[in-house]
Amino acid sequence: MHGLMQDWPLTVDRILDHANNWHAGREVVTRSVEGPIVRTTYGAIHGRAKRVSNALLAWGVKPGDRVATLAWNTGNHIEAWYGIMGIGAVCHTLNPRLFPEQLIYIINHAEDRIIFVDLTFVPLLDAILPHCPTVERVVVMTDADHMPQTKLPVVECYESVLEQSSEDVRWGQFDENTACGLCYTSGTTGNPKGVLYSHRSNFIHTLLGLQTTVIGGSPKDVILPVVPMFHANAWGIAFAGPAAGSKLIMPGARMDGPSIYELLETEGVTFSAAVPTVWQGLLNHLRENNLKLSTVKRVLIGGAAVPESMIRAFHDEFGVEVLQGWGMTETSPIGTLSNTTPEMEAMPFEEQLKWRVKQGTPPLGVELKLKDDAGTPLPSDGHTFGRLMIKGPTIARAYFKDEGGHILDDEGFFDTGDVATIDEQGFMQITDRAKDVIKSGGEWISSIEIENIAVGHPKVALAAVIGAAHAKWDERPVLLIKLKDGEGEDKQEHLDFLQGKIAKWWMPDDVVFVGDIPLGATGKIDKKLLRERMKDYRLPDQPIGKS
Amino acid sequence: MHGLMQDWPLTVDRILDHANNWHAGREVVTRSVEGPIVRTTYGAIHGRAKRVSNALLAWGVKPGDRVATLAWNTGNHIEAWYGIMGIGAVCHTLNPRLFPEQLIYIINHAEDRIIFVDLTFVPLLDAILPHCPTVERVVVMTDADHMPQTKLPVVECYESVLEQSSEDVRWGQFDENTACGLCYTSGTTGNPKGVLYSHRSNFIHTLLGLQTTVIGGSPKDVILPVVPMFHANAWGIAFAGPAAGSKLIMPGARMDGPSIYELLETEGVTFSAAVPTVWQGLLNHLRENNLKLSTVKRVLIGGAAVPESMIRAFHDEFGVEVLQGWGMTETSPIGTLSNTTPEMEAMPFEEQLKWRVKQGTPPLGVELKLKDDAGTPLPSDGHTFGRLMIKGPTIARAYFKDEGGHILDDEGFFDTGDVATIDEQGFMQITDRAKDVIKSGGEWISSIEIENIAVGHPKVALAAVIGAAHAKWDERPVLLIKLKDGEGEDKQEHLDFLQGKIAKWWMPDDVVFVGDIPLGATGKIDKKLLRERMKDYRLPDQPIGKS
Repeated sequence: MHGLMQDWPLTVDRILDHANNWHAGREVVTRSVEGPIVRTTYGAIHGRAKRVSNALLAWGVKPGDRVATLAWNTGNHIEAWYGIMGIGAVCHTLNPRLFPEQLIYIINHAEDRIIFVDLTFVPLLDAILPHCPTVERVVVMTDADHMPQTKLPVVECYESVLEQSSEDVRWGQFDENTACGLCYTSGTTGNPKGVLYSHRSNFIHTLLGLQTTVIGGSPKDVILPVVPMFHANAWGIAFAGPAAGSKLIMPGARMDGPSIYELLETEGVTFSAAVPTVWQGLLNHLRENNLKLSTVKRVLIGGAAVPESMIRAFHDEFGVEVLQGWGMTETSPIGTLSNTTPEMEAMPFEEQLKWRVKQGTPPLGVELKLKDDAGTPLPSDGHTFGRLMIKGPTIARAYFKDEGGHILDDEGFFDTGDVATIDEQGFMQITDRAKDVIKSGGEWISSIEIENIAVGHPKVALAAVIGAAHAKWDERPVLLIKLKDGEGEDKQEHLDFLQGKIAKWWMPDDVVFVGDIPLGATGKIDKKLLRERMKDYRLPDQPIGKS
Repeated sequence: MHGLMQDWPLTVDRILDHANNWHAGREVVTRSVEGPIVRTTYGAIHGRAKRVSNALLAWGVKPGDRVATLAWNTGNHIEAWYGIMGIGAVCHTLNPRLFPEQLIYIINHAEDRIIFVDLTFVPLLDAILPHCPTVERVVVMTDADHMPQTKLPVVECYESVLEQSSEDVRWGQFDENTACGLCYTSGTTGNPKGVLYSHRSNFIHTLLGLQTTVIGGSPKDVILPVVPMFHANAWGIAFAGPAAGSKLIMPGARMDGPSIYELLETEGVTFSAAVPTVWQGLLNHLRENNLKLSTVKRVLIGGAAVPESMIRAFHDEFGVEVLQGWGMTETSPIGTLSNTTPEMEAMPFEEQLKWRVKQGTPPLGVELKLKDDAGTPLPSDGHTFGRLMIKGPTIARAYFKDEGGHILDDEGFFDTGDVATIDEQGFMQITDRAKDVIKSGGEWISSIEIENIAVGHPKVALAAVIGAAHAKWDERPVLLIKLKDGEGEDKQEHLDFLQGKIAKWWMPDDVVFVGDIPLGATGKIDKKLLRERMKDYRLPDQPIGKS
């Protein structure tokens, strides 16, 4: 027997309709790419997004067609999103930080027909579009006065297009499983793979995000998403903001400490979200200029593990609570959040850090489990490592055009490629990437954990740990060290430094001093390249350490 | 094109699974029907709910079968809910406050096969079950020591049944549109009508409820739902509590001021939800005993308009924020909430009351509109009355067994039967029931608004306003007054009292002194009976007022 409730498809156009109906006057403030601070409202954005839809329809865009954006976080970018999605086209967010050849691959793979682009990226498009035959038209998101010189064949001026388009268009009215957004992972292995969000998954993700324990949001909140709309959908804030009627502050192209600080203070921001490097830039700026944060209550930090020192600095120096989050493009991205329990809160802050450095627990709608390589479930005891598997209505079940093939296990869980622990309080902590974990005698050793300790030695500039083949144990860890300028090589002192801080059987079998440790585009160690460089390395017959 | 996200049906069994996986140790505390305070956890409730499922399966309960509960808010009641819903049966919450003949009608209409009952209501069932042939079995929710004398033919002891049942049962795995809950409206006209919730509607409603602007909820919250689980699903708290991992405090049979106060203070309640009469009882108790509320931050009040004096008392005397809510059985029930904006919060509290007395704005997922009898949309200007229409995935589209026929308009909106205004800030205010509003010359007059003013006259005990037939204007208002004992009848002084407080054309054409004004079961004026009593009344030829 079915229930007798209304059939109301969960489509994201309803989110901006809601903002227009109930929060039309609430502001969206952008540091524009052209320079000035630009103020608009959800009501105005709603009307302009509908004009975008009409322009797309006039250019022959059909449901399911991919329309890309190559843009910063701005009010215009929000308009483009809803304008594209509202008519059932797929909004493909391009990440401008990718190499040109990756962008070419992605645009061709997605078969993008139209690209909305910020002024900043017009030279980039000039260079790559000759290699992208599916792209028929580029819309530069600026006004006529700012239109650039470009070699692009069919170019439109965003403001002129909007001026010529009507606001009268019908949104939604399609199946909630209709594709809505496309975002490629910048995977370190193989080609980039596209995650194809549905209206349903984005709508449900928005509701997850509105929970008190996630983003929250109310008309009283002022939210600044530094995390880009091309990076896992700005963690959902371009949906959650209008859904909650919160004022949104869009930082445009400038994410340096002084620029973010200025927006936080002048606009009265209460909540903001960004990766650790952005926050480090802000903290540096605050300290160097002896500044305080007068309105920010809480910051969401994700994209990489949050250093304990950062959590402590926000708490002790600025009275701001850090909420650590974990997720990935394939998870929309909300996965877990480091919400403390009342039992933790009853402890001194220093003791709470034991949990606050972890990535935390999932909200309703996200299932997690740990399993070993054989698929056996592993215990949540806080120390057993396992592959982190995830399931839910906001998690990918396949990649676009079936790249990567079947990606779910027998129980429907997606393999995150991360290795993690889950403790008795349910707090998940990422310990390594699965491909970087060192498998020694059937047990797993976290390369990241050893690196994080080794890099604390005063002579060390960078440290990396990789597995090297071993006849008996399969793999044993090797510690690679790039010394600070002028420091001398002494293998034993680095092993001594690890003593007592890691399990004895984790102790590296060798220390190798290297002139360089390669970093990837996101600042993480490029383990793939490192392993390639070390492919001829052989372990010593005996571990070099004394103990 | 469809998205490529996981198919993860939104079924409510996943809510208790989530609580068991991530918040297993979080407490559920009940003032038991037998007397003592009973403490359990989501982990224990999860296991016991699974035992309920196995018992039901052993008794031959099939998906879609209706299993009823006649019970207070207790941990046991939560177990019964999830045990029933988890296997695809329909949990039918019976309201013990209905007249026996209404209960008989409802049980027979629903064709309930099994009833879970609290000790309190066993005598009630003894009396009515001979008239309910579909009921095969009654489960008394107590232990063997407390089993009562009863004339019921097939009776089970809840604790004995659980002891004999296994925890090993498969939940969910069915379509999210599967029926999940059944709740009858105690409609004032015609027979009670059943609202048949789906798993999907209840799951989405749970996500709506978890928003910061609605119930919210986190592991740090302690939530006390005074509003009964048989009254519009305790406003969703039996789902939202476990979903958020909040500690739940269940008041059992005692909702008087001293009992609620004791739970609020001893259990550290942060959030509670109840109808105004319960809060009035609490406020009286607090004042009489010079008590304070030390942990409660926010209370959700709904079910009837919240008097301004109550909002002010909570704020001024107890430092508690009142969130006013509006909804109905047909709306799951969340409809609107009186969340203030930053612009309102910048005003002195007295000025904020202008909005805080209203029922507020809808969360994402609830659509509202006002229309007149001809179906024409009406403006949101704060003074134009219209029929309040509502739409969304948590709103009924039909009643069980099609009672009442087609209940949606051409755009899919459900007619709430309420008349309301919506102001420029989007705040909705209920002004009357549609059947009580007085239609005068094509315009509407709110009977409730005149009553609320008239009852403020020091000589008046009760006041009611009804429409009387008028040759020219169709209807004109008549003010009925029940005087306090010993007061003298003077029609003009009651009209004078209204002067300047209502529009001139709202002024009643006559004042009638009556010995009695009938009240319904919920304490509201029974207008239907009043109109019946006044059916022979005729208006004077001229309005009696001087002005």
